[in-house]
Amino acid sequence: MKDGLFEETVKKNYLYRGKILSLRCDDALLPDGSPCKREIVEHAGGVGVLAVKDHKVALVRQFRYAYGEELLEIPAGKLEEGEDPVLGAKRELSEETGLEAERLKLLATLYPSPGYTDEIIYIYEAIGVKEGKQHLDKGEFLRVEYVPLEEAFLLVENGTIRDGKTLVALLKKKNG
Amino acid sequence: MKDGLFEETVKKNYLYRGKILSLRCDDALLPDGSPCKREIVEHAGGVGVLAVKDHKVALVRQFRYAYGEELLEIPAGKLEEGEDPVLGAKRELSEETGLEAERLKLLATLYPSPGYTDEIIYIYEAIGVKEGKQHLDKGEFLRVEYVPLEEAFLLVENGTIRDGKTLVALLKKKNG
Repeated sequence: MKDGLFEETVKKNYLYRGKILSLRCDDALLPDGSPCKREIVEHAGGVGVLAVKDHKVALVRQFRYAYGEELLEIPAGKLEEGEDPVLGAKRELSEETGLEAERLKLLATLYPSPGYTDEIIYIYEAIGVKEGKQHLDKGEFLRVEYVPLEEAFLLVENGTIRDGKTLVALLKKKNG
Repeated sequence: MKDGLFEETVKKNYLYRGKILSLRCDDALLPDGSPCKREIVEHAGGVGVLAVKDHKVALVRQFRYAYGEELLEIPAGKLEEGEDPVLGAKRELSEETGLEAERLKLLATLYPSPGYTDEIIYIYEAIGVKEGKQHLDKGEFLRVEYVPLEEAFLLVENGTIRDGKTLVALLKKKNG
């Protein structure tokens, strides 16, 4: 509490424990000691992979129910509880696109919306990308699109790409 | 359903209606017609503002309860239901930092975590930044830090800055 910004947990109150998230509404104390409530979404974390092959980036088009829209995103997914993010990222890349990577380089660690979720998204760049075989999860519907890198940068510029992890991955790539 | 990715809502089921978010677990249909559940966090949306004055960017340090950490973020906040994002952004900038902007330019529209939240974050760049007077909300504890732009880019590069909207704003700025 050295600089007076710390908030203390009094009691964690679970309201919902679900499949991809859980919800708490905690009793907490503000830095000045006054009581407050904190609505927190618990999430096991996610991974995303920027995979470029022959100057084309692998993007995944899928319907995102929350927005009622199709979005273009880098291959990504949710970590299993306790799963190594590097292994999770290789798994998701392979499942969604069939691509295999010799190794993954961490591009960014992303906190998507720190006001209410504890999700951490690890974004990697795939090094040594090779073709393999796509093997989607049951109930997973998506289409892989190979977009020339310069065109993908344009989709960032003109606002077509809106997904946070995909923006960060492509902007970091563009920055070199 | 022209390309077979659409998911249809059968029934919206509210589990929680809170102060900053609500939670639903909907009955829906996958593209192949089979039933599924969709856990969705409803959020009224947010705004963030990149404000640079004398080659220094205004960053806000605050404790983020979800992570149990202090984070450095651009000034930001939640929209009121139905609020104009530009007005909301000017309001948050002024409240948190005291800075006033002649006008705001849209830098990016960000979907922070499309797997489960419908939140949209509008990120602006402040043009014509002038000093004013900070006037924090009750219960809001934060410290404004003016960071030289090149140093802020370094904090992005070395992983110190992790907040999604702040990463996107600074990476876009660096890209010119």
